[in-house]
Amino acid sequence: MSHPFFERHQALLEQATQALASRGYWSAFTEMPSPRVYGETANDEGKAAFDARLEKPFALTQPATVGQVGKEVSPYGFNLGVSYPKADLDQLFAVIESATPAWRKAGPQAWVGVSLEILQRLNQRSFEIAYSVMHTTGQAFMMAFQAGSPHAQDRGLEAVAYAWEEMRRIPATALWEKPQGKNEPLKMEKRYRVVPRGVGLVIGCCTFPTWNGYPGLFASLATGNAVVVKPHPGAILPLAITVQIAREVLQEAGFDPNIVTLVAHEQGDDTAATLATRPEVRLIDFTGSTANGDWLERNAHQAQVYTEKAGVNQIVIDSTDDFKGMARNIAFSLTLYSGQMCTAPQNIYIPQDGIDTPEGRVSFDAVVQAIGDSIVKLTGDAAKAVEITGAIQNTAVLDRIEAARAIGEVVVDSRALEHPQFPGARVRTPLLAKVPAGEEQKVMQEFFGPISFGVATRDTAHSLALAGKTVRQHGALTLSVYSSNPQIIEQAREVAEDSGVALSINLTGGVFVNQSAAFSDFHGTGANPAANASLTDSAFVASRFRVVQSRAHV
Amino acid sequence: MSHPFFERHQALLEQATQALASRGYWSAFTEMPSPRVYGETANDEGKAAFDARLEKPFALTQPATVGQVGKEVSPYGFNLGVSYPKADLDQLFAVIESATPAWRKAGPQAWVGVSLEILQRLNQRSFEIAYSVMHTTGQAFMMAFQAGSPHAQDRGLEAVAYAWEEMRRIPATALWEKPQGKNEPLKMEKRYRVVPRGVGLVIGCCTFPTWNGYPGLFASLATGNAVVVKPHPGAILPLAITVQIAREVLQEAGFDPNIVTLVAHEQGDDTAATLATRPEVRLIDFTGSTANGDWLERNAHQAQVYTEKAGVNQIVIDSTDDFKGMARNIAFSLTLYSGQMCTAPQNIYIPQDGIDTPEGRVSFDAVVQAIGDSIVKLTGDAAKAVEITGAIQNTAVLDRIEAARAIGEVVVDSRALEHPQFPGARVRTPLLAKVPAGEEQKVMQEFFGPISFGVATRDTAHSLALAGKTVRQHGALTLSVYSSNPQIIEQAREVAEDSGVALSINLTGGVFVNQSAAFSDFHGTGANPAANASLTDSAFVASRFRVVQSRAHV
Repeated sequence: MSHPFFERHQALLEQATQALASRGYWSAFTEMPSPRVYGETANDEGKAAFDARLEKPFALTQPATVGQVGKEVSPYGFNLGVSYPKADLDQLFAVIESATPAWRKAGPQAWVGVSLEILQRLNQRSFEIAYSVMHTTGQAFMMAFQAGSPHAQDRGLEAVAYAWEEMRRIPATALWEKPQGKNEPLKMEKRYRVVPRGVGLVIGCCTFPTWNGYPGLFASLATGNAVVVKPHPGAILPLAITVQIAREVLQEAGFDPNIVTLVAHEQGDDTAATLATRPEVRLIDFTGSTANGDWLERNAHQAQVYTEKAGVNQIVIDSTDDFKGMARNIAFSLTLYSGQMCTAPQNIYIPQDGIDTPEGRVSFDAVVQAIGDSIVKLTGDAAKAVEITGAIQNTAVLDRIEAARAIGEVVVDSRALEHPQFPGARVRTPLLAKVPAGEEQKVMQEFFGPISFGVATRDTAHSLALAGKTVRQHGALTLSVYSSNPQIIEQAREVAEDSGVALSINLTGGVFVNQSAAFSDFHGTGANPAANASLTDSAFVASRFRVVQSRAHV
Repeated sequence: MSHPFFERHQALLEQATQALASRGYWSAFTEMPSPRVYGETANDEGKAAFDARLEKPFALTQPATVGQVGKEVSPYGFNLGVSYPKADLDQLFAVIESATPAWRKAGPQAWVGVSLEILQRLNQRSFEIAYSVMHTTGQAFMMAFQAGSPHAQDRGLEAVAYAWEEMRRIPATALWEKPQGKNEPLKMEKRYRVVPRGVGLVIGCCTFPTWNGYPGLFASLATGNAVVVKPHPGAILPLAITVQIAREVLQEAGFDPNIVTLVAHEQGDDTAATLATRPEVRLIDFTGSTANGDWLERNAHQAQVYTEKAGVNQIVIDSTDDFKGMARNIAFSLTLYSGQMCTAPQNIYIPQDGIDTPEGRVSFDAVVQAIGDSIVKLTGDAAKAVEITGAIQNTAVLDRIEAARAIGEVVVDSRALEHPQFPGARVRTPLLAKVPAGEEQKVMQEFFGPISFGVATRDTAHSLALAGKTVRQHGALTLSVYSSNPQIIEQAREVAEDSGVALSINLTGGVFVNQSAAFSDFHGTGANPAANASLTDSAFVASRFRVVQSRAHV
């Protein structure tokens, strides 16, 4: 069954599926907040729309509402004052159940068409969502715009394109004609119907609610499932706006809006666990702590669970052709969003005897110092620095900085910065400490936030062995290597492939290890403890639907 | 990296992947045990090879062996007397670990090429394997040949083709070139490497050790995993021969044979649970009881678990254009391998007021009686009957027949038949009983074996509702409907799609609901409690490998 929204976006979908196959650079949604692309008034309107949300109930008309919840606080120092419908879960799942039959039957073109239309509308609302991401996660505006809007939309589109690729491979019908020697062949017509699994649950995180939330949301929706979105209590607004837009599109397309619903809640209750173990929930997409992710993998037996959890990201420095470029690049990776990225590096392994550079041998201490100096330089001007660091999402990160000071000798301490626009903002520069040879066990856990360690190793072989072992034991989303020796690069590739982590090599320019580009970079491998899935590959979508066939003689 | 075995079978692989897409009739391996295809002496040689296996240790040289196990008894009335290496699991997994690095690195073409060569060699050994299937499962020779050899090989090939389809979509490299306005674009070369998950465990069943075992075995092997094959203690031999052949091919291809290993054990120990929870095991393919399958899904957290479990298969009779053809077709489905097929029907729903036929209205009693009469006719001549029924795999089936007699009024009782060739064979004809309206709850569980029930319903709407509810609650692999009313057929399709079960419509000729054809029929949907996976679709293969990338500026 075709659908007008499918026809509207078919060309985009075709481009997206081609991009998946070639994996070169491709993006559907412009990453620069440019007035030429988004409109001269887009920023002002988006800001105004965000401001208009504050200090009032969020305008989401959703059945099964039994009160209001929500206590979000901007990391820039003010209460959002937005409240959201509180759902009675039994009632909510009853309305979802009555919404699903027509959606189930609508078929892949309708599911994909509606998903693409939602993405298009999200793109039009990129500034409003950017401000909502900024004031829940603490990201600086530019990152909130890019990662929170166009990049997140690209990741959503990528999931839709993968889902479409898998679903379109199922033919609608087949003629099966089996020869019977001299007798007439057996002839049957077979029909194949793609059916969804049930309800998908998206459990959002407080640092990248849209970027990490959209892949699961759109993968489930594009394969015909209803989706319940449960944001982190600290970052509800971006996903509430998303749900609101999805419901508008569903309604316009002639479907019951309750195919996509919001379950907002406050910190410390058991909403996530209650939702995750409901029999209707057959798919769960989770981003968050290892403890919660492991719990889901072990207890939500009725569902297929996709998790992204904690990890220890690492850099192996062996040698470099561009010492300054390396130090600057690493410093930026450590400073960006104050290290509150699941891809940010933490442990930097450097041989205790130093490394070779074009300027000669540089000692372990001097390498760490150079990275520290780059951090200091990058964060020297508070007005510029805050546009890189953003603000600290929650006070647990501050506690972690405090604790990290005791781990090793501090090379560059974390400093509070005054934000020129937001005096109450929680801004911190990165802390960089040194860990002497033999004490690496102290940093074999995630210190989420602006915390990193220069770790002295016996030599690069030791660094690589340590890196591989840490990926296997603690998980990682990224590994980075610096070497001017092609053999070391090959060894690093082997370590990465054997332990199952994405590798970046000699980043000294405008690409940072933290960054992962839709349609080209697989985010997470699913092959180490940091994630049991990858954003996005076939495995991420193929189990979200099933095929039911019928056959009859013709 | 190309591989000679890949080149040898590339044309076959291409045909197989095309067959997956079109899903018309296609088969790679000839299903008739014809001397013209398999060779004039193939049957005699296969029989001789089977006989030569009896009463001695199985010639499998496998490290980590600490004794011998095996007490298989032919359902045709004699002990096989074959013993198999008993593995010390810690030692075994150590040798597997040392075997894997070279296999991991060999890449998709080598994995697929080796898998295809193994399938080709299995095909050449089809008669030997057929006799081993016959004398472990109790299948009659023709079924043991077809389902145990060519059809199982086709299912294995299907899994390899799906795996190849998914893996070949990952490009080896990509050039990523991101425009930077007036500046030089950012350019990176990215490399993508397909890596296996770890060790795949195949847990075999005692009724279709190869047909149900090959999909998982070949799906895991073709994606680069090592595979441990743990046969059911009652049907070790067919899988032991399979493992032996796989090891020969691996060795010829220059790999360590311990990539495929056998773990034989005897009834009643905890080998399955011990294997399934080992950290090295990342993929599990299971066919067996609901209790064991559920246990795996709930406890083998470290692995992706694919299960096929018990179910209640059903037939809804509304009306028919061919009353005799219907009765004959159903009777054959009930008699074939004495109902010991996971696809065999059990509950036959018939309106209490009877059905319309070309011969006029036929009462409930008369419909059941007609099916019963067809059973009696089909099994009247013992010599012919045993070629359909085969023998009863184990005595639990006999106990179940006994218990079924108490459920409802027996229309046709199960009889013991004398096997002309095997006097000690456990042969039984089907039992068919009637369940009056309102008592259907008595048969809402699987009675695995030659046991079926004519169940009186209020009307066809009731039959369909009952069928849908039963699929949802108890699971099912098949649903069959008979109706001359297109509206009822449409309703049956809706029930099948909503509850997630494959539907066969008006089978009155040479196709039976029990049969599922590779490359065309999806066996199991993964959408109801009888199975969490389908043989075979993308979801069955996509999570068996991961992609690890690296990127560097160019």
